[in-house]
Amino acid sequence: MLEALPDRVRIVEVGPRDGLQGEAKHITTEQKLAYIGRLIESGLGDIEIGAFVSPKAVPQMADTLEVAARLPAAPGVRYLALVPNYRGLEHALEAGLKRIAIFTAASNTFCEKNIRMSIARSLDVYGEVVGAALTAGLSVRAYLSTCFECPYEGAVPKQRVVELTERLLELGADEVVISDTTGSAAPREVYETVGCCVGAVSAEKIALHFHDTYGTGMANVLAGLELGVRTFDASAGGIGGCPFAPGAAGNIATEDLVYMLDRMDIRTGVDIRKVVHAARLLADALGRTLPSRNFSRLNIQNV
Amino acid sequence: MLEALPDRVRIVEVGPRDGLQGEAKHITTEQKLAYIGRLIESGLGDIEIGAFVSPKAVPQMADTLEVAARLPAAPGVRYLALVPNYRGLEHALEAGLKRIAIFTAASNTFCEKNIRMSIARSLDVYGEVVGAALTAGLSVRAYLSTCFECPYEGAVPKQRVVELTERLLELGADEVVISDTTGSAAPREVYETVGCCVGAVSAEKIALHFHDTYGTGMANVLAGLELGVRTFDASAGGIGGCPFAPGAAGNIATEDLVYMLDRMDIRTGVDIRKVVHAARLLADALGRTLPSRNFSRLNIQNV
Repeated sequence: MLEALPDRVRIVEVGPRDGLQGEAKHITTEQKLAYIGRLIESGLGDIEIGAFVSPKAVPQMADTLEVAARLPAAPGVRYLALVPNYRGLEHALEAGLKRIAIFTAASNTFCEKNIRMSIARSLDVYGEVVGAALTAGLSVRAYLSTCFECPYEGAVPKQRVVELTERLLELGADEVVISDTTGSAAPREVYETVGCCVGAVSAEKIALHFHDTYGTGMANVLAGLELGVRTFDASAGGIGGCPFAPGAAGNIATEDLVYMLDRMDIRTGVDIRKVVHAARLLADALGRTLPSRNFSRLNIQNV
Repeated sequence: MLEALPDRVRIVEVGPRDGLQGEAKHITTEQKLAYIGRLIESGLGDIEIGAFVSPKAVPQMADTLEVAARLPAAPGVRYLALVPNYRGLEHALEAGLKRIAIFTAASNTFCEKNIRMSIARSLDVYGEVVGAALTAGLSVRAYLSTCFECPYEGAVPKQRVVELTERLLELGADEVVISDTTGSAAPREVYETVGCCVGAVSAEKIALHFHDTYGTGMANVLAGLELGVRTFDASAGGIGGCPFAPGAAGNIATEDLVYMLDRMDIRTGVDIRKVVHAARLLADALGRTLPSRNFSRLNIQNV
């Protein structure tokens, strides 16, 4: 409702990692750096630039170390990279990154298939990684995937999401990203599951990560705003969906999120036209149009 | 919020009128009847089948009288057609329709350009039309367009929307459709403008009509649900946008609306797969894909 709306929201741009990781078409290091440069120009203050994961498993992320090492100095911008294990942390330190993201799941089957560890084992592993990261002066964001539905197990109990959120904060993460990995959640689940998380920990410790697969992404954002959440993930152009399904939406599009927040007098510090300028580089590199609602509208205009 | 969510929502399918009216490619009467037949099969209970407007101004609506005369008998389905004047009402009566829709605007410039009458004049004209319709045993829905933004005048004062809503109900309409004609509204405006309307008249007298041009359509629906509104317009496939802008979204897609409501345990009586079956006929007839999020996902499956 109206009285719940904030003055300001923080957007975390996940396109260079979550957006690109599933794209089959190879994006060169030069293209990535140009794309990240345009994201910086748009005013985005948090940019996830890649993942230190197996190049065999995720070829698109193979150059993360080089990308990280060549990032432009950008005062006020927090770069971060996904780190699945201790070795990944070493890469992040080598590249001089100041922030990492770890990744576990609220569904054990998904966790096993995705990172080849049980949830319990992942918490043990990340306990060491986060401890070492904090000692080295880095900060840590924690993704918690499949918080609403697991493609293998179905509906995920909200109490498990709450418990894992608390555990990840105890490990030393400064925010937990409640993620709708399948994009299937609708606002009722957001009210219920995220509502419980916000009740258990401070809303400032929660970020929300939605996909627009089924068209509910922006409605889920509204539900999150009402619950007091002030940090939302998005990707320029809305990439992040299955690249083989025409019209399939991915992450909620940064420009669609900025449009809605601008229109609601909620400041983000992000220039929508410059986000579209970044997305245009992606569309050209990927050789296809992008699923965001505002991309085609603004893509024809000068920025 | 959670406690505001209803058990049931009524969807008014506007595809055969608002969806098709701007499409340049001619849809034959046979195609329209097959499409309407599939909409009926999906469980939709309110279907706007056309408009008795000038065939020169809107060629796609030229066969509305024939469509109306050949509609299948469908118990429980309310057909309606847009009627801009007394002559339109005569056509509706001739075709045996039991429900009509009238159309005015909350912006005078838009009203003049759209129906060549001032708002005040349109209320005079519709006073006679509605009176005659009610005398003949018909029921009347009233569209109020540009309730949030006018492409010529900019932001529309909410008090004007409230006053016109009250006037249209006084004329004898049983519901007023608060319409976001440009698709530019975001939830703050819905809370503010629709909130005022709901405060002035019963929420049961209000329907909401959103377009997804800027990606805010489904979030606006959530805002409307929170305000107590229980009737929403939509079009199968999400047609209704500018057919010349690739990727441009039109009305919110019926299947996207049904997906979200199903997922929130809000009953609609509509089968999403059968809506997509109707949309598929449209996609074939129009020779292009459709902007809804659930269309491409379900279009590859059997229904």
